Amino acid sequence: MPTTDLRPLFNPKSLVLIGASERAGSIGGMLAKHLLEGKFKGDLYFTNIKRDSVFGHKCYPNIEALPKDPELAVIAIPARFVPAELEKCVKRNIHHAIVLSSGFAEVGNKELEEELIRVSRKHDIRVIGPNCAGIASTHTNMIAAMENTYIPGGLTIISQSGALAGSMMLRATYEGLGIDKWISFGNASDVEEAELLNYLAKEEDSPTKVLFLYLEGATNGRKLVESLTEATKHKPVIFLKGGRTAIGNKAAMTHTASLGGDPKIYESVAKQTGAIWVESLDEAFDTYAVLSTYLDRGGKRVAIVTNSGGPGVLISDNLDFLNLELNQPSDKLREQLKELPEACPRENPFDLLGDANPERYELALRALAHSGEFDTIIVVMVPPGDADVDGVAKLIVKIANEEHNTAIIGCLLAGKKVENAIRILRENNIPSFPTPKRAAWGAYALDKWNEIRKSKS
Amino acid sequence: MPTTDLRPLFNPKSLVLIGASERAGSIGGMLAKHLLEGKFKGDLYFTNIKRDSVFGHKCYPNIEALPKDPELAVIAIPARFVPAELEKCVKRNIHHAIVLSSGFAEVGNKELEEELIRVSRKHDIRVIGPNCAGIASTHTNMIAAMENTYIPGGLTIISQSGALAGSMMLRATYEGLGIDKWISFGNASDVEEAELLNYLAKEEDSPTKVLFLYLEGATNGRKLVESLTEATKHKPVIFLKGGRTAIGNKAAMTHTASLGGDPKIYESVAKQTGAIWVESLDEAFDTYAVLSTYLDRGGKRVAIVTNSGGPGVLISDNLDFLNLELNQPSDKLREQLKELPEACPRENPFDLLGDANPERYELALRALAHSGEFDTIIVVMVPPGDADVDGVAKLIVKIANEEHNTAIIGCLLAGKKVENAIRILRENNIPSFPTPKRAAWGAYALDKWNEIRKSKS
Repeated sequence: MPTTDLRPLFNPKSLVLIGASERAGSIGGMLAKHLLEGKFKGDLYFTNIKRDSVFGHKCYPNIEALPKDPELAVIAIPARFVPAELEKCVKRNIHHAIVLSSGFAEVGNKELEEELIRVSRKHDIRVIGPNCAGIASTHTNMIAAMENTYIPGGLTIISQSGALAGSMMLRATYEGLGIDKWISFGNASDVEEAELLNYLAKEEDSPTKVLFLYLEGATNGRKLVESLTEATKHKPVIFLKGGRTAIGNKAAMTHTASLGGDPKIYESVAKQTGAIWVESLDEAFDTYAVLSTYLDRGGKRVAIVTNSGGPGVLISDNLDFLNLELNQPSDKLREQLKELPEACPRENPFDLLGDANPERYELALRALAHSGEFDTIIVVMVPPGDADVDGVAKLIVKIANEEHNTAIIGCLLAGKKVENAIRILRENNIPSFPTPKRAAWGAYALDKWNEIRKSKS
Repeated sequence: MPTTDLRPLFNPKSLVLIGASERAGSIGGMLAKHLLEGKFKGDLYFTNIKRDSVFGHKCYPNIEALPKDPELAVIAIPARFVPAELEKCVKRNIHHAIVLSSGFAEVGNKELEEELIRVSRKHDIRVIGPNCAGIASTHTNMIAAMENTYIPGGLTIISQSGALAGSMMLRATYEGLGIDKWISFGNASDVEEAELLNYLAKEEDSPTKVLFLYLEGATNGRKLVESLTEATKHKPVIFLKGGRTAIGNKAAMTHTASLGGDPKIYESVAKQTGAIWVESLDEAFDTYAVLSTYLDRGGKRVAIVTNSGGPGVLISDNLDFLNLELNQPSDKLREQLKELPEACPRENPFDLLGDANPERYELALRALAHSGEFDTIIVVMVPPGDADVDGVAKLIVKIANEEHNTAIIGCLLAGKKVENAIRILRENNIPSFPTPKRAAWGAYALDKWNEIRKSKS
């Protein structure tokens, strides 16, 4: 039985970067820079036979020369040297390694990959990679990764594609969404998606709120099903499969040398296990955006509060496509809305009309949020003229934070006029969406997780 | 037969704003401000019984007092006064009017709307509205509209929803996409979508490259079909229907009091007539983005050039869903790619690997663009470390402008690292998309219009 504790991959007491460098564009150079910039809190060692220091940090000629045994090895040396280096790691009591080096099975060098597997099994070394972009663990300040643009937060990304994961880290940061852990697992010679999911969903005191999995082909289908079933008892898992079509599957096989299997099977795997199936990066991000705030809310009953009919109609269409309900208010609630101008329909979508001011939004929104008649409220604003969109954003924040169980999300349209209002929502963790379709998806993701949560409890 | 020349609605020699005002938030105030800021080139008159000047511009007590007959009346007075005001307009030889006033059929006041129709028919006054957000014609500097944030360009927006159209104007500007004309036609008491489409698609010397139609319910189904059939012989028409589902259709009926009709019929109308059917604002914008640059290119054969496998796989999936081809290169083309590093597959998607520099992109891109084997190339870049993404953007521009018939579009992922590169592409009219799915849609929209164009010629 291999070591099942993966903790040193994410939170090691000490680590050694084997192949540290200052060379621009090299993996050893990027990793040294990111580890230093990340301010890793434990003992950080660099090795490189040719250097005494790297970016001002002491560098040892080799692992034998280190003053203490490190807990984790991060390996960025040419592929052919990796198996022998792992043998040396064992002598320093290292049982966890992240191998970024490429030139293994992904380029047809299966013998070298088998040699790596043989060594790691023999000595019980748990390996991430090879041919991966590393691991970033933002709350433990361990940025052993090729990308290091992040805000610490609640999303953990587990990806078969390093560059796709990299682009997700960049986008998350751009959109103000925080990351806990980021794992590019590459060829998955040892630790693969199923084990990672299982470990990370159950990890104690974890800042992770939501897991995201990008997969092109499962290493072991049965293990993946078991792991998704188990992980989703603890945390939502967003699942994006690359290679869902014949043409995409062929591209995936070239990319990760994975056996894609029947491209259609994965959607039913998601359904069966309780993962949240998404078909695009937008859907993935929008799912995380709502769940990072409203992990225990959501449901089928959705209200739209808007100052413009058109976006209300488009959201209604998308709610219908997603099997959500645009239920109508009770007589009691209609009565509570009597102070609205007469021309405002007491119907869902609640159209507050083009001249709606923050006070009108407040009246409608508070009555709806506290009524218990809706699980999610989508607040739309298209600011005509000099309408006070910032004022509306502030009161969305206020009412979202009052005592009720309604999830409130924004859909502010569009451009520069709503930039500051979106910033206000974002800074207060209120998800906001740039289009009617994506706002409807936000309501759907909340309902979806609510259903899964109930079915598993 | 009513006057069929709609020119004075978009390019009048002179116009009068009836109900000009300085009051913040009032329609007459917004319109006065936008007309002045737009620097309308003809004679601009304001009327308001209570004022001598509005924002420093001379204001007449009424239309009778004007020194000359204006060609167009823009009306922003309470609804009940509108029919009588139209009678006065006739005496000043005005036969075109934009009525922004609301309080007609949309609030159940059908009698007043019928009165307005009766007057306009009797005197042959062509009316846009009532209950509309006006018309902006950016190349003729006539901003008789409630929104005035724009860049002059090639998109004409025709919308039943004023606020949705307003949000589109704001978004287009934010994304650097230019607008020619913008028409909110409101209750369509006289001039409706079909006549507008027909007129604007055929207008001579028009800066319009692409038309966009947002409709909740057609005023006259047969006329709409005829008009779409005719308009698409001249220019692409992007068609977004609000109220495609039962629940959305109900919302639409509340919104514009339109008889939605069978919500499913509109998609077949689009197919039958040659309109480009879109299901979201993103699809609408992405269609315009590609067609504004590549109006006469596109087709089924798509190549992906990338430095990252994952996004290539996701684009491949989406191309397959959209029935596009990821065709493989000829032996001749493979031979031309022999200078690429050996590890780069000579297969589509063309993966240039994570360390791809601008030179490698240039080699691949030039060979592919000039091969004649692909209609569209999607260039993906996820910038690892300090990769030269601006350099790649610049050479995309260079190769896109060489002599060939290949449409080149970008898919740069993600965040701040690609912000400047996207700006470079945008300034050179190269469409760029923020996700794999949207890039695939861009290729689809080019193929779609190419097919329609061929079928109509």
